[in-house]
Amino acid sequence: MTDYHPGLEGVIATESSISDINGEKGILSYRGYSIEELAEKSTFEETALLLLTGELPTAHELSKFTKQVNSRRDLPSGMIDLLKTLPKDSNPMDVIQLAVSSLGTFYPINFDAEELKAKKYTKEYYIEVSAGIIGSIGSIVAAWNRIKNNNDYIRPDPNLSYAENFMHMLDDTIVVTPLISRIIDATLILHAEHTINASTFTSMVTSSTLASPTQVIASAIGSLSGPLHGGANQKVILMLEEMGSKDNARAWLEERLSKKQVVWGMGHREYSTKDPRANILTEMVKDLFKEQSGKVSDMFEKAMELEKACEEKLAKKGVYANVDFYSGILYKEIGIPVDLFTPIFAISRTSGWLAHWIEQVSNNKIFRPTQIYTGHDHRKYNSNT
Amino acid sequence: MTDYHPGLEGVIATESSISDINGEKGILSYRGYSIEELAEKSTFEETALLLLTGELPTAHELSKFTKQVNSRRDLPSGMIDLLKTLPKDSNPMDVIQLAVSSLGTFYPINFDAEELKAKKYTKEYYIEVSAGIIGSIGSIVAAWNRIKNNNDYIRPDPNLSYAENFMHMLDDTIVVTPLISRIIDATLILHAEHTINASTFTSMVTSSTLASPTQVIASAIGSLSGPLHGGANQKVILMLEEMGSKDNARAWLEERLSKKQVVWGMGHREYSTKDPRANILTEMVKDLFKEQSGKVSDMFEKAMELEKACEEKLAKKGVYANVDFYSGILYKEIGIPVDLFTPIFAISRTSGWLAHWIEQVSNNKIFRPTQIYTGHDHRKYNSNT
Repeated sequence: MTDYHPGLEGVIATESSISDINGEKGILSYRGYSIEELAEKSTFEETALLLLTGELPTAHELSKFTKQVNSRRDLPSGMIDLLKTLPKDSNPMDVIQLAVSSLGTFYPINFDAEELKAKKYTKEYYIEVSAGIIGSIGSIVAAWNRIKNNNDYIRPDPNLSYAENFMHMLDDTIVVTPLISRIIDATLILHAEHTINASTFTSMVTSSTLASPTQVIASAIGSLSGPLHGGANQKVILMLEEMGSKDNARAWLEERLSKKQVVWGMGHREYSTKDPRANILTEMVKDLFKEQSGKVSDMFEKAMELEKACEEKLAKKGVYANVDFYSGILYKEIGIPVDLFTPIFAISRTSGWLAHWIEQVSNNKIFRPTQIYTGHDHRKYNSNT
Repeated sequence: MTDYHPGLEGVIATESSISDINGEKGILSYRGYSIEELAEKSTFEETALLLLTGELPTAHELSKFTKQVNSRRDLPSGMIDLLKTLPKDSNPMDVIQLAVSSLGTFYPINFDAEELKAKKYTKEYYIEVSAGIIGSIGSIVAAWNRIKNNNDYIRPDPNLSYAENFMHMLDDTIVVTPLISRIIDATLILHAEHTINASTFTSMVTSSTLASPTQVIASAIGSLSGPLHGGANQKVILMLEEMGSKDNARAWLEERLSKKQVVWGMGHREYSTKDPRANILTEMVKDLFKEQSGKVSDMFEKAMELEKACEEKLAKKGVYANVDFYSGILYKEIGIPVDLFTPIFAISRTSGWLAHWIEQVSNNKIFRPTQIYTGHDHRKYNSNT
C-alpha cells in the first residue's frame, strides 16, 4: 500500500516509449526525435505515423498511411445528416466527442478481446484503424463549422496535405499561403503528444477495458474539453479582447498579477525554461508578421506587446509564453474561429491518444486503483419519506 | 516516487465517501447502507439521490428529484432525429455514448471553472443537473431499441416509476408484473455504484479537468463498453446458448474448466465470498420461476442447472455466481434484448458516476500521474522517405 497523492501526482501509472519531457532543459521528444526537428522537417502525417509505430516511416509506408487517412477525409452522408440534427450553438467539443463516437457506428471496428489475446492484431491493423480515425476527425471539425454557419459541406481535395485540406474544408475563401500551411502543419505536430496528461491518461484507462478505439478517443475528448486542460489557447484570445488597446498591455499585466489572476498562455507546469513548442511558434509569428506586414490585426499587435511585457516581468521567474499563447494568436490571425482551437488540439492529439491506445492494449492490465473510504459506518435503513 | 504498479493495482487514487466493499464478509454499502436493505426497501430514484447527496431524502426532496428526473424522460425531437441517422446495426454502447454526449447540445449545462472556484454551485444545482442526465439516459436506451427495430418512439408515462417507465418505453407489449417491476428496480439499484472500477475512475479523471458532466458520463460509458468491464451479463447468455441442453451443463462446465476457459458470471475479484448483489437476485430468480411456473424458457432452466453445477464444483474455492450471472438471466427471461444489458448497466451506473463527479469537483485536483520513459534516447531526424 502506498500513500495517497491527490491527482496521482508523482505516481507512476505506466511505462511508455512514446514521448519524453525534460522540463529543466526544455526538451520534448517523440520517439526520441526532438519536437524542434519534427516541426521543421516532418509533416503531421509522418509524425502521426512515427507516434503510432515508433519509427520514421519509409516512403512506401508513409504513402500507404496517407492514402488510408485520405480515404476517410470525406465524411459519410449519415454523419452530415447527424451533424445537421444538432443545435447550431452547440459546444463544438460536445459535437466532436459525439461525432467521433458515431464513427464506430458508420465504420464498425472489429476489436475483439479473444483475438487480441491470440495476438492476431498486427502493426498494419493498428495503423489502418488509427488512420481512419485521424482521417475523419479533421473533417468532422471542419464540417461542423460549415454546418453550424448554414454553409454547405466542402468535400476534401485529394491533392492537399492534411493541414491544407483541413483549411480547405473549413473555409475555402481563406488563402492558404505556404507559410500558413506550414503553421497549421507545425501546430498539429506540436500538439500531437505530451506524455501522461489528463486526456491521455483517460485514453489509457478507457483502452484498458478493451473498449473500441473510437470509444477511447471520445473519452479522451471528454477530458480535453475541460477548462483545466484543453482550452487555454481560446482563453488567450478572450483575455486579449478584455485587455483594451496595446498601449494598455503593461498596466493590464501589472493589475492582473497584483490580483493574482491567471495570465493565460504563460508558464507551464512541466517546463521551468521556455516551452520548446513555444520557441518554434515564436519564429512563425515573426514570419507571419513579415508576410502580412502592414495588415496584421490589432489583436496580433496586442499579443506581441503583452508578450514583451511578460518577458520583462516574468522571465526571471522562469515563466515564459507557452505553446497555447502562440498557437492561439496564430490561429486567430489566420482566420480560424476561436471556438475551434480546442477541437483542432483534439485533431492533433488524436494521434498521440491512438499511440497510447496501441501501447496500452499491447501489454494490458485494466486500471482499477483503490480508495480510502471516508464515508459513513454501517447504518440501518430508515426511510425519511 | 513510488514503485510502478501496472493498472495502479493497490494504489490509492482518491478518498471517497460514496461506497464501500468488504470482500471477505461480502458486504457492499452505499453511503453506509447495505445493498441488501436498499434493494429490498428503497427505489432506484431514492438510491440515486442517496448516492448523489450522501443522505436518504425526505419525502419532499425525493418528490422534487423524481419530478426533475421525469421532466427529462421525454426526449427532444432533435435526439430522435439524431438516432434515426445512425445505422440500425450500430453497437448500442456507441449509440448510448454519442447520445449522452449530445445531451450537452440539447440541454446546455452551465458548469464554469470560475463559478466552481467561487463555490457558487449548491447541492440543488448538482441534483438538478444529475437528474436531467439520469432522466434522459433510460429513455435513450429504450428509444434506440425502438428506432433500430423500425418501431415508433414511445413517449414516457408520467404515472410510472423509473423502472416501469423504462420497460414501457422499451416495449409496451411486455406485461410488467409487480415482480418484474421490482426486479428491474432492484437491478438498477444493485449496479448503481461499486467503488473505483475502470469506468468510475474514467469519470473521475474526466471530471478533474472540469469537463461538463455529459462529457464525463460519455467518457465513462466508453470505459464501460470494453469487454473486460461491462459486458459480462451479455456473455453469460451467449455462453448458455453455446452450452447445448440443460443435461449438458455438468459436462460442459468440466470441459470449460479443464481448458481453463472463463465461466462468465462466476467469481468476482472483489469478493472471496458470494457477491452480496447475487444473493439478492437469487431470491428474485426463485420468485420469477414461481410466477412463470411452467412457462420458463429453456435458457432459464439451463442457467439454473449450470448454477447448481458451479455451486458443487466451485463454491469450495470461494467462487460463486455473481451479479452478472443472475441479472443476465433475469433480463433475458423478462424479454429484454441481450445487447441492451450493458446499456442498462450504464443507465444504473450513471447515478454512481455522477456521485463521483460531484465528489471530484468539490475537492478537485487534476489527474496527471507520471510515467517511466522506456523509449529511444535522443536521435537525429533522418527522413526515410
